[in-house]
Amino acid sequence: MREDLRHLYQHLHRAPELSMREYRTAALITERMTALGFSTFACGGTGVVAVLRNGDGPVVAFRADTDALPVAEETGLPYASTARGTLRDGTEVPVMHACGHDMHVTAAIGAATLLADTRHTWAGTVVFLFQPGEETSEGARAMVDDGLWEKAPRPEVVYGQHVWPGLAGTAEINIGTTMAMADSWKVTVRGRGGHGSRPENTIDPVVLAAHMVVRIQSVVSREVPSSQAAVVTVGSFHAGLKENVIPGSAAFTLNVRHIDPETRERTLAALHRVITAEAQASGAPEPELEELYTFPLLVNDTEEAAAARSALEGALGADSVTEPPVHMGSEDFGHLPDAAGVPGVYWFFGGLPDEVLHGEDPAPSNHSPHFSPVIEPTLTTGVTAAYTVLVSRLGNGSRAGGTGR
Amino acid sequence: MREDLRHLYQHLHRAPELSMREYRTAALITERMTALGFSTFACGGTGVVAVLRNGDGPVVAFRADTDALPVAEETGLPYASTARGTLRDGTEVPVMHACGHDMHVTAAIGAATLLADTRHTWAGTVVFLFQPGEETSEGARAMVDDGLWEKAPRPEVVYGQHVWPGLAGTAEINIGTTMAMADSWKVTVRGRGGHGSRPENTIDPVVLAAHMVVRIQSVVSREVPSSQAAVVTVGSFHAGLKENVIPGSAAFTLNVRHIDPETRERTLAALHRVITAEAQASGAPEPELEELYTFPLLVNDTEEAAAARSALEGALGADSVTEPPVHMGSEDFGHLPDAAGVPGVYWFFGGLPDEVLHGEDPAPSNHSPHFSPVIEPTLTTGVTAAYTVLVSRLGNGSRAGGTGR
Amino acid sequence: MREDLRHLYQHLHRAPELSMREYRTAALITERMTALGFSTFACGGTGVVAVLRNGDGPVVAFRADTDALPVAEETGLPYASTARGTLRDGTEVPVMHACGHDMHVTAAIGAATLLADTRHTWAGTVVFLFQPGEETSEGARAMVDDGLWEKAPRPEVVYGQHVWPGLAGTAEINIGTTMAMADSWKVTVRGRGGHGSRPENTIDPVVLAAHMVVRIQSVVSREVPSSQAAVVTVGSFHAGLKENVIPGSAAFTLNVRHIDPETRERTLAALHRVITAEAQASGAPEPELEELYTFPLLVNDTEEAAAARSALEGALGADSVTEPPVHMGSEDFGHLPDAAGVPGVYWFFGGLPDEVLHGEDPAPSNHSPHFSPVIEPTLTTGVTAAYTVLVSRLGNGSRAGGTGR
Amino acid sequence: MREDLRHLYQHLHRAPELSMREYRTAALITERMTALGFSTFACGGTGVVAVLRNGDGPVVAFRADTDALPVAEETGLPYASTARGTLRDGTEVPVMHACGHDMHVTAAIGAATLLADTRHTWAGTVVFLFQPGEETSEGARAMVDDGLWEKAPRPEVVYGQHVWPGLAGTAEINIGTTMAMADSWKVTVRGRGGHGSRPENTIDPVVLAAHMVVRIQSVVSREVPSSQAAVVTVGSFHAGLKENVIPGSAAFTLNVRHIDPETRERTLAALHRVITAEAQASGAPEPELEELYTFPLLVNDTEEAAAARSALEGALGADSVTEPPVHMGSEDFGHLPDAAGVPGVYWFFGGLPDEVLHGEDPAPSNHSPHFSPVIEPTLTTGVTAAYTVLVSRLGNGSRAGGTGR
Repeated sequence: MREDLRHLYQHLHRAPELSMREYRTAALITERMTALGFSTFACGGTGVVAVLRNGDGPVVAFRADTDALPVAEETGLPYASTARGTLRDGTEVPVMHACGHDMHVTAAIGAATLLADTRHTWAGTVVFLFQPGEETSEGARAMVDDGLWEKAPRPEVVYGQHVWPGLAGTAEINIGTTMAMADSWKVTVRGRGGHGSRPENTIDPVVLAAHMVVRIQSVVSREVPSSQAAVVTVGSFHAGLKENVIPGSAAFTLNVRHIDPETRERTLAALHRVITAEAQASGAPEPELEELYTFPLLVNDTEEAAAARSALEGALGADSVTEPPVHMGSEDFGHLPDAAGVPGVYWFFGGLPDEVLHGEDPAPSNHSPHFSPVIEPTLTTGVTAAYTVLVSRLGNGSRAGGTGR
Repeated sequence: MREDLRHLYQHLHRAPELSMREYRTAALITERMTALGFSTFACGGTGVVAVLRNGDGPVVAFRADTDALPVAEETGLPYASTARGTLRDGTEVPVMHACGHDMHVTAAIGAATLLADTRHTWAGTVVFLFQPGEETSEGARAMVDDGLWEKAPRPEVVYGQHVWPGLAGTAEINIGTTMAMADSWKVTVRGRGGHGSRPENTIDPVVLAAHMVVRIQSVVSREVPSSQAAVVTVGSFHAGLKENVIPGSAAFTLNVRHIDPETRERTLAALHRVITAEAQASGAPEPELEELYTFPLLVNDTEEAAAARSALEGALGADSVTEPPVHMGSEDFGHLPDAAGVPGVYWFFGGLPDEVLHGEDPAPSNHSPHFSPVIEPTLTTGVTAAYTVLVSRLGNGSRAGGTGR
Repeated sequence: MREDLRHLYQHLHRAPELSMREYRTAALITERMTALGFSTFACGGTGVVAVLRNGDGPVVAFRADTDALPVAEETGLPYASTARGTLRDGTEVPVMHACGHDMHVTAAIGAATLLADTRHTWAGTVVFLFQPGEETSEGARAMVDDGLWEKAPRPEVVYGQHVWPGLAGTAEINIGTTMAMADSWKVTVRGRGGHGSRPENTIDPVVLAAHMVVRIQSVVSREVPSSQAAVVTVGSFHAGLKENVIPGSAAFTLNVRHIDPETRERTLAALHRVITAEAQASGAPEPELEELYTFPLLVNDTEEAAAARSALEGALGADSVTEPPVHMGSEDFGHLPDAAGVPGVYWFFGGLPDEVLHGEDPAPSNHSPHFSPVIEPTLTTGVTAAYTVLVSRLGNGSRAGGTGR
Repeated sequence: MREDLRHLYQHLHRAPELSMREYRTAALITERMTALGFSTFACGGTGVVAVLRNGDGPVVAFRADTDALPVAEETGLPYASTARGTLRDGTEVPVMHACGHDMHVTAAIGAATLLADTRHTWAGTVVFLFQPGEETSEGARAMVDDGLWEKAPRPEVVYGQHVWPGLAGTAEINIGTTMAMADSWKVTVRGRGGHGSRPENTIDPVVLAAHMVVRIQSVVSREVPSSQAAVVTVGSFHAGLKENVIPGSAAFTLNVRHIDPETRERTLAALHRVITAEAQASGAPEPELEELYTFPLLVNDTEEAAAARSALEGALGADSVTEPPVHMGSEDFGHLPDAAGVPGVYWFFGGLPDEVLHGEDPAPSNHSPHFSPVIEPTLTTGVTAAYTVLVSRLGNGSRAGGTGR
């Protein structure tokens, strides 16, 4: 199976698709899960739900996200992506599985294979949720809005996992708060365009937007208490088409992360204040702020997380499972258990060998064009973690109809 | 004729083409000039040369540039452009005659029409140079490199004109220095990409490039003597594709203008110094500076310019012709007379009605998405100016074989 | 006694003295402590040690810091300071007890009074350390270097306390890490001076230093992991004497705080990098970085801190004693127990009434010109806290010669 | 006489006094002028008027300014200043004749000596105006307000001269506009002070004012037409007294220079806009803008200036007198002729040897701590220029009662 999964992973890595457009990925998942004996149905556009009923017992769900990112891969791997996709504004861009969702899909299919193979040892129902559009905070909501929990068996708990730049072979799980809130804005700065030789007849939106980006840094450095975490990233900045034309506008995107809701209120207000005032400093019109999406705080159920941690320790060794600080990344995973009114549990598994993790150069993080989890033991760890936690929560197959915990 | 030219102008305005890709424009020009009795040939790719030999007499040349700009028209005119084109890096962009080259082509064809109609009144040879790629400083050189002055009769003088935001019906001409030098650079800033939630693992190229744009302002404000003119414009800035991904690089273009060569040396050195040091401030690699093109200083021949000024005063009225300050715009026009070793003369004609020029809002300048010369009296002024200056320099048709000045 | 202490506090508040120049304060302390029956000696310049031997039993020490700050008081209190002092560079400045050390001295004298009054109830020796120069991280070291622990009885533990903007009547104590490390630098930026009308002949150090201050913000916002605390404050900035003269240099001070030593290494290196590179961006000489002082991390001994917490809970009520997050302020208190090789314990007591703490305006923090602890119940809390913890650690006076814990 | 003047110059250089406090300088001038036979009176505080009546003939006036600057001399000259003075806010500062007014006073006394010695060769009245407080734009107005032209004979013309970094032995004079307008503001930025470890409880005025200084650079670089001169200098910046205290406010001074009144209106409005908006970006109160003083444009009378130029050419050689670009420095000289309703003429004389002027390092300009005119031939040139122009405008002494021009 390991060789088969390695091929599957490399295939997915080569063929990444942008959020909510995971057509070929969904087709492949449906094919594989059907072949394993799962009943499948599409949900939320390119989402796929796969269900295996195996006698009386708890219903448990496991979610794997499927989308990739507009990043130009620079790993130099033999199976590196050269794929391209189209953003909603029509721009054609390179696409890469720079966040490891290909590993998530492969590990889920691996765990599903083991569950199918060992169905005499457990009882209950497993529901695999292959979720599209995680990177845009759309997919979980799309599945829920498409009637996920009317169509699929309602579980007692929903699990999920993420590969990240930790030591391959290890896992990390929080008992409680797990991942940050995120807000994303698009800021469109209006100036007045004109000839590059006569700035005095224009309101230069490039210089204005650059001042905004610089001024925003003081929000984190001066207004956020040092005891609180806040990250404000300008992920994109676009203005102008020709060096000798001052454009009429500039646009940039903001990605803002917090753990504490009060700090979030304060930072967002400060960002709004800075953006408005900087436009005034240039004598420019009020900029347009468009909210792209928000991610809620991701909080593990403490009881279920503690049980999952025990299962992970059993499978990977007690020394290989730790509790990390709250991760500043974000997830829409929480919508899935929340919509069902049940607990959710989310953990991380490492993807880097020791020599990369502690090498001279900083290890590439998720979203880097150099992000490349080592396939093994990462893949086996992902399969084992998912399988073990699921089985630990399902009923005992030797008894007729397990009852769960 | 006026009605015909109006339609021609509106047609050209609707169908702008990017630099060195003026295919349909060149075809139209060739068709029109051939119909007038000129012999034509292509030169420098999409350039067109049109020659009318009319007995013995001086050879004089007149240049009109033909290319448009990657600007999204916002004039709201009934004949506004909706055309699109493709930049060399493959990006599809809107295209607009935002610099009035459509007016230049139309006026040249109008003047050619008058010259053809009045050929009994003058003697000699007129050479019309329809030049592509002025906005990228490529076209004049391309025509010269393609053997322009081997293929076309070598003139005694080369003329050119430009519509600009002056009063329609008037002209401006410098006796001596006319337009600024320009240097254009593309700056590629290298950082290290990563997840938007973990800037500490990256070198953020967006913040770095924004710091560069801001820091560059101090070069003009503190290092350029106030007695010298210098303009440093960042015409474009592009980085990143997704708000939650810190990109690996950012790119911006610089357009730098001077009249004094020593000030230019100083400013360019300061820009280089700032860009290098800012990268060091971020711990980033040395940025890449690519020189896109340069424009030389445009200097009118004083004797020929004085003669042209007299002719313009005769045609438009003495009060309607003035000498402006040196224009900070730039031109590759100078290559054409320089390559022939003959004097060049370049003037401006106004394109705006009084109520726009002195209205409450600043009048849109060339390269603005709102730039829109009023068709009349602008067009008639352009035709008259070109025709009058050319005829004044050609031989007298009543004598057998004029000798020029 | 309460009325006497109130007057003492108001007297001290009116007569603040700068670090290492606490002459009148030291004289007053010596007079008061001698009157209480303590034997006193000067130590470390303006430091005062006061010892009360009361039979066999543990030796315990309590430290109160005595210096004030160059801040112009704006509290409007009837006992507000109008004092002035002279900085080491000769500048005359206003002085204010803006950090509450007047409260520390008063509370210590209050606790000493109670100890003297109740000496039949306890046994052992108490050593009061009235330490000068806390704000400049000089005083603790000066006392140690002056032979503190050769001259004073070596204690089993050293205590200290600080008033801060918490609820008056309550206390906070950390079991473990208590206060941050701090580094302070003076940065002298060299430019080239000249006439304000000709910046092109100068290297403007004001604009350069302003760019440094702005650029430094990106270190905290982009290079410090959001899970780590870091504060970089530019507390002063001085350049130039006349608006039409560009000065030859500018100077500013940096105050940098961390909890994690690795983050500190990284931030300090980044600050150095930014300062050096910004000077290069201006073509200026390498700036001078002078280290003013450092504060170490302050860490409470866990066992002694737990015992002190119990004592505080007994005195103030269990609900009134909590464990705060690590305080980003800094202290040189730790030198005193460290030099004796014994544990240290440091706690905070609140100084603000509820309506100020949770009022519409943010409560003024220590070092603010508006910082003004409410005298009661703050003073009584400070006295009670110090007395209770000391007595709890001393021997039982009813037994002949307590042994301590 | 040359040796005497050298000693006088060195004496004055050693003993500079701040604006409107030129007590010892005024006493010395009075003593010297009285000794030469002039009748003197004090005017406008520390101003001195010295009059020599010598028969019928034109009345002409010559002004020399007398004040020095708060600059710490770094010339290393044997006669360098070590003087100190007190600013109006009480700050004690170093003082230096960094603008060469010591040379102006010495040259005026030298010219007065020659006039006294050669009184048989001319007829009329000379009025020397030793004006205080030029650097603060106070002195000329103070003399006028003190009844200058009621007390002194009303002249037909007022002359003045300034040493500057040109070639020693040469002079420069404008026929028309001579020196720029200047506006000086003090900007007080209000924040909210607090502890250096808790910026989140403060509004940091240091970071805010630094943002203002940086943002202001974009006004000159983007809003001033490149054909217009504008200089915006931040000559001083002061905030905070201690590195670990965030101060409650910061203050900086602006010195702004223009030739064109319309550009001035635009720049001043833009500066106001930027300062206001940056405060809003920090959530700070509106800053206070205090106008310190303004200097008007200095315009030479064209007829009188042409006559003075002829006289200078006669004395120094035609090659040694040129017309410079308009000087961006400013002068309150113009108040003196304006108040009398007569023409004014102002010129410059060089103070640097060729090897300094064209050496490897930039020549130190006025106001630099390194500004040091070479004594000869500078002093002789200043004396000769003043004497020659004055005599050329006075009556002919051989005739009984010259009539002037």
